[in-house]
Amino acid sequence: MSKQRTVNLECGKSTQALYVIGTVINVDIYKPSPPGCRTFEVTSSPGVNCSISNQQNLTIAAQYATRWALSEGILLGVMVDQVSYAPNDRKVTVIFYGDDVGEPIDKMILELTAVVVSLDVDADRDGIVEKNNPNKGSWKWGPKGHGAILLVNCDKEEAAIRGNDNSDDKVSIFEDLGDMSHMILRTEGPNNLPAGYKLNLSISPLDEEKVQIFQHDITKMTSVLGRKKMSAVMDFTKGDNEIHFFAEGLMFPNDKITNLVTINLSLLQSMIYREIPIFTEQVVFRLAPWIMTPNTLGPAEVFVCSVKRNVKFLKEFKSFMEKTQCKLTVCPESMNLSDVWMQDEIEFGYTEAPHKYLNVVLDSPRDAGLQDFPYKYLLGPDFGHTKVTGEKGNSLNSFGNLEVSPPVTVNGKEYPLGRIIIGSSLPNSSDGRKMSKTIQDFLIAQEVQSPIVLYSDWLVVGHVDEFMTFVPAPDRKGFRLLLASPDSCYRLFKKLKEGGHGEARMFENQVVKPVKISEILNDQTLREENAYVQQCINWNRDMLKMELGLDEGDIIDIPALFHRDAEFQRALAYFPDMVNMLVIGKFLGIPKPFGPLINGKCPLESAVRSALEPLGLDCTFIDDFTSYHMRYGEVHCGSNVCRKPFTFKWWNMEI
Amino acid sequence: MSKQRTVNLECGKSTQALYVIGTVINVDIYKPSPPGCRTFEVTSSPGVNCSISNQQNLTIAAQYATRWALSEGILLGVMVDQVSYAPNDRKVTVIFYGDDVGEPIDKMILELTAVVVSLDVDADRDGIVEKNNPNKGSWKWGPKGHGAILLVNCDKEEAAIRGNDNSDDKVSIFEDLGDMSHMILRTEGPNNLPAGYKLNLSISPLDEEKVQIFQHDITKMTSVLGRKKMSAVMDFTKGDNEIHFFAEGLMFPNDKITNLVTINLSLLQSMIYREIPIFTEQVVFRLAPWIMTPNTLGPAEVFVCSVKRNVKFLKEFKSFMEKTQCKLTVCPESMNLSDVWMQDEIEFGYTEAPHKYLNVVLDSPRDAGLQDFPYKYLLGPDFGHTKVTGEKGNSLNSFGNLEVSPPVTVNGKEYPLGRIIIGSSLPNSSDGRKMSKTIQDFLIAQEVQSPIVLYSDWLVVGHVDEFMTFVPAPDRKGFRLLLASPDSCYRLFKKLKEGGHGEARMFENQVVKPVKISEILNDQTLREENAYVQQCINWNRDMLKMELGLDEGDIIDIPALFHRDAEFQRALAYFPDMVNMLVIGKFLGIPKPFGPLINGKCPLESAVRSALEPLGLDCTFIDDFTSYHMRYGEVHCGSNVCRKPFTFKWWNMEI
Repeated sequence: MSKQRTVNLECGKSTQALYVIGTVINVDIYKPSPPGCRTFEVTSSPGVNCSISNQQNLTIAAQYATRWALSEGILLGVMVDQVSYAPNDRKVTVIFYGDDVGEPIDKMILELTAVVVSLDVDADRDGIVEKNNPNKGSWKWGPKGHGAILLVNCDKEEAAIRGNDNSDDKVSIFEDLGDMSHMILRTEGPNNLPAGYKLNLSISPLDEEKVQIFQHDITKMTSVLGRKKMSAVMDFTKGDNEIHFFAEGLMFPNDKITNLVTINLSLLQSMIYREIPIFTEQVVFRLAPWIMTPNTLGPAEVFVCSVKRNVKFLKEFKSFMEKTQCKLTVCPESMNLSDVWMQDEIEFGYTEAPHKYLNVVLDSPRDAGLQDFPYKYLLGPDFGHTKVTGEKGNSLNSFGNLEVSPPVTVNGKEYPLGRIIIGSSLPNSSDGRKMSKTIQDFLIAQEVQSPIVLYSDWLVVGHVDEFMTFVPAPDRKGFRLLLASPDSCYRLFKKLKEGGHGEARMFENQVVKPVKISEILNDQTLREENAYVQQCINWNRDMLKMELGLDEGDIIDIPALFHRDAEFQRALAYFPDMVNMLVIGKFLGIPKPFGPLINGKCPLESAVRSALEPLGLDCTFIDDFTSYHMRYGEVHCGSNVCRKPFTFKWWNMEI
Repeated sequence: MSKQRTVNLECGKSTQALYVIGTVINVDIYKPSPPGCRTFEVTSSPGVNCSISNQQNLTIAAQYATRWALSEGILLGVMVDQVSYAPNDRKVTVIFYGDDVGEPIDKMILELTAVVVSLDVDADRDGIVEKNNPNKGSWKWGPKGHGAILLVNCDKEEAAIRGNDNSDDKVSIFEDLGDMSHMILRTEGPNNLPAGYKLNLSISPLDEEKVQIFQHDITKMTSVLGRKKMSAVMDFTKGDNEIHFFAEGLMFPNDKITNLVTINLSLLQSMIYREIPIFTEQVVFRLAPWIMTPNTLGPAEVFVCSVKRNVKFLKEFKSFMEKTQCKLTVCPESMNLSDVWMQDEIEFGYTEAPHKYLNVVLDSPRDAGLQDFPYKYLLGPDFGHTKVTGEKGNSLNSFGNLEVSPPVTVNGKEYPLGRIIIGSSLPNSSDGRKMSKTIQDFLIAQEVQSPIVLYSDWLVVGHVDEFMTFVPAPDRKGFRLLLASPDSCYRLFKKLKEGGHGEARMFENQVVKPVKISEILNDQTLREENAYVQQCINWNRDMLKMELGLDEGDIIDIPALFHRDAEFQRALAYFPDMVNMLVIGKFLGIPKPFGPLINGKCPLESAVRSALEPLGLDCTFIDDFTSYHMRYGEVHCGSNVCRKPFTFKWWNMEI
C-alpha cells in the first residue's frame, strides 16, 4: 500500500506541498467546494496522475472524463511520477461549476514539488544495496524472507588501535568498512528543497546503543547516528544525489537489546509552532547473531595451553594433532598464567552477513589465568571478541558447560544450525547451581540455536562436556550422541570378571593406587553412587532424545564411572572420562582411561574403539591423568577448536 | 507423543520403578544381555503392554511371539494401563536363551508400581476442569485454541478486609473462590507411594509474583504456592484421591511480568545424593488481560463530579443523563477534593475468564484530588482495582489520553476488541512529552488491543480526546471516527460571512469577550496556528486510517478552532471542543460551542447535528464553558463511563 497523506485545499487559493514520489496525496473535493457547485473538472501538469473516488472506493481515471458530478465523499488522489525541475512545478487544478455549466464558479490549486527520497539497504540479502526495495522496512526469516543485516563490528582491523573496531566513533582504517553494512540515501529533485522543509535521519532511543552509522564523505567518515546521536539533518543540495553510509552493530542481542534496528528517514515541514513530518520511511536491520559451531564442522585451528606440569600431555597432544593436519596453537604459560582450561575461558563462534563473515570468540565471565588470551591473542582482523557477564565464581558459567548439537529436525521443526546445550540444576528447583541468567538470556537472544537446558549440577564441576559429546557419522542423522555410561562400564567389568580377569587392576603405574576390577564391582557405595549418576544421565538422555529428536540408535554409551566428592556431595570421574574428548573431523583425542590391561590391551579403550571405529572415526588415547584428570578435567576441558562456519546461512532459517 | 523414560535393567536382578500411566518406559535389551545369548522372551503381568523395536523403529507386539532373535539396538517399550493395587505388582520378565534353546541362561525383571497422577485445569475453556486434557501444558489463542485462564483477583469481596482480595495469603470469604481458577490434582494407585518417592508441586521463580495457589481442605484454604512459596509436597495417601486447588493472579502482565504461568507436577525419587524427577508434567495458565471498552459498547454506569463551580453544568448533565436512562453516580466534593477530571484519574475496563467476569478500574499515576475515589468507592465485590506507575506530573499520563477504538479489521488482520489509542510526541523525536514507558508497556503487555500511538504533544494538555472520538453508526464498520477540524470550521465561518453574517458574534453572554466571525476570519495568526493544527490532525488522520483500516467515509470532521498558549507554545481549544463529547449509546453529550446565533440557531451545533443525526444519534449540547472549557477540558474530560464487556471472548482472538 502506498503511503497516503491528507492535504486540504481551499477555494480561490493555491496550496503548496512537497510530494515524495511513490506516495498518494488525498484531497477532499466536496468539503471545500463552493455553494451552488454541481460539477467539477480536474486538470493537471504532465507527469501528474489524478484519480477520483467516492466513498464506495470506485476509482475512475480522471483523464477519460472532463466533468464530474459533485457529491459528498468525493476524493481526489494525486500521484506524480516525474521529479520536479523547479519548486512547485507540478500543478493540479480543481475547477468547480454551478448550474451554468459553461462558466466556472471557483477553483482551487495544488502545487507540488515532486522529489525522490529513498533510504536504501541490502534488503534482498545479496550483498549489494538495491533501489527502494518494497520490503526494506520490515524483516522476515527464511529463503523467501527479506531484510538487511548488521554485523557487530567486534573485530580489530589494526593492531595500533585500542579496543574493538566498534568501541569508538571513528573508522581508523578503510578495510573496516568491509565489516559494515552499506546504506544509501538517494535524493532527486530541484537543487534545493522548498523553504521550510528539511531531510532528517533518526533512530529511536532504544537503538542508540545498538548501532553506529558513519556518513561517507570524499575525505572522511563521520559518525552521524548512534552513541547518543539520535538525529541528523541531511543535505538535499544538488537534488540528484547519493549519500553513502556505513552501519556497524555495537553489541550482540541480549535480553535487554532486541535484535532489530530501525533507521528513520523523515521529510519535516517547519510550521508556526514546530516541525511536523510530511513523509517518513524506515529501513530495518537485524543484528546478526553469534553462532556456535558443533563438532561435525571442520576445524580451522586448535588451541591448547603449555604449562610446566603438562609436558608429557602436550607431547602426546601434538602428535595427535599431527594426524589431524589441523593448525595447532599452543598458548604459553606467560599468557595462560598456569591456567590450562582453554575450553572453559572461551567459546569460538562466528557472525555473518551477506557481505561478510567474522570469527567471534565469546569470552566467559570466568576470568581465570587465561582471561587476557582472547583479547590479546585472538582479537584481530576479522576475528571479533565479545564478552558476557555473570558470576565469576560459578563453575556453570565456564564454557565446558556450553556446547551445541549438530543440525537436527525435531517433530518437523528444523534446527539447521543445531541447538545450544547448557547444564543447570533441575528445572524448577530453587536450590542448586545454574548458569547465570545473563548468559542464558544472551544465548536465547541469538535466536538461531534455541538452547536446551540439561541437568549438570549433579557433577562437582557441573559441565555438560563431562557426560556428553557429539561425533560425526556417515549414516543416520550425520552424527552420534555419546553419553557417559556407568551401567555400560559395570557390564564391561562384570564380563571381565566372568572372563577370569577380576584381579586385573586399573591405574597400573599411575600416581594413584591401582584398584582391582573385582574391588570396583564389590564396592556397594560406588555402585549406589553410580546408580544415581546413571539416573541423572538417563534424565539427560530422555531430554536430549526429546529436544533433539533422537532415537536410541543415535546414541552410543561410553563406559564411565563416577564417585562422590565428600566436600561437594557431587560426582567426579573415577577414571579419565572418555566422553570428554576432542573431536577434530574424524580424529578423536580421547582421555586415556587407564583401565586394566588384558593381554596388553585396555578393554575400556577397546570398547570405545569397537563402538566408534565402524563409523570411520580414528581414536587416539591421550594421557591426561596427572595434568588434567586429577584436577577435575580432561582433554576437552583443556583444549578448544575454532571451526569453519556452517554453509547454511542463518537468515534462511524459518523461525 | 508419550513421555519416554529410560530404565536400565541388569541380568539376574529385579529392578523396581514407579510408573505413571500414559508414559513409556524404554529398556535396552541388548546391552545387558549375557554372553552367548541368542534369543530372548518377554513375559508380563496382566495390564502390562510390551513392544519390541529395533533401531529401525519396527514395532512388533510381543504377545504374538514367544521368542525373539537378539540383536544390537533391540529395545523394549513398556506401558501399563491399570493402576497397581500394591507396590511393584506389575512385572515384566526378560528371559535370555543361548544356543540351547530349551534352557534360559539368565533373566532380568522390571517391577513396576503403576500410578495415575494428573494435574488438571480448565484447558478447554468451558468453565469446568476436565480430566488430563492433552493440551493442558501449553496455551494457544483462537476458537480452536486451548489453555487455562487465570484472573487477577483484584476485586474485594468483603468491605471488612483490607486491600484487594489478592493482597494477602488468605481467603477471607467463600465467594472469593468464584474469582479463582479451579485446579485438581488426581492420584490413583496403592495406598502409598513406594518408599523414596514423593509428589511435588512447584512454580519457577519467575512466576512466584504472578500467582498464588490455595489448597482446599474440608476445613480451610491454605496458600501453598506463590508469594515466595516455590514448592509444596503433596499427599498421596489413600491412593484414589482428588486434591482441589484454587489459583488467583496477583498482577496483570507488564513488561517485566509475562502472561504465562506454569505449574509443575513432579514425582521425585530420593537417591543417594539427592532427589531426581522420574516424571514431570506442566499445566499452563494465561493471566487474563485488562480490556478497555470503546464508545460502541453499551453503558453500565456514568460518573461525574460535583463541585461548587459546576452546579449549572451538573444540572444540564443530569438532564442529559435522564434521556440515556443510564445510571449516573455523582462523586461529591468531599470525595473528589475539587478535582473534576473524572476521565483523567481512571480508565474503566474489565477482565474475564471462562468462569468469571470482573470489572477492573485502571488507576492512573495522576493522583490528584480524585485519587482515593477508585479505591474507596469503586473497589468492591466483582469490581477490581489496579494501578499503573508513571510520572505523576506528566499530563500525557492522564487517561483522557487513553482511548480505544471499536473492533476493526486492518488488511485482513482482525482486532475484535479494537485497538488502544494513546497520544505522545512524534515518533523518533527525542524531545517532547510521552506517556510513561511503564504505562505503554502495561498496555502492550495486555496483548489483545494492540496500541496505536498518536501525536498529541502539540496540545497544551496533550490528550487524544481533545481531537478525536468514536460514535456508533448503523452502517459501514459500525462506527464513525470524529476528528476536530479547523478547516471545516473556517469553511463554515466563510460561508456564514458570505451569507452576510460576518458581524455575528461568538461567546455572546459568556464571561469572555464576544468575537465576530469576520474578526476570526481576518486573524492571520489564528489562521496560521490552525493551519499547523490541521496538519497535526491530518498526521493523526492518516495514521488512524492506516492503523484502523479506515476510509474517508468512516471519518466525520467536527468544526473546531485552536489557538496558541503563549506559555506552553502549544494548542488550546478556542471555543468548547465538541469532539470532546460523552457517548452513551446513541446519546451524545457535547460541549456547547457558543457559536454565533443566526436566526436563533448556532451553525456550529447545526453542522454537528446534520452530520450525526442521520446516523441515528441524539445530540445534547451541554454548557461546560466556565466549569470545564476555561480550565482546559470539556464534557468528556469531566466524566467517565463504565461500559458492558464485549460479548467476544478475548481468548478466541488469533494473535
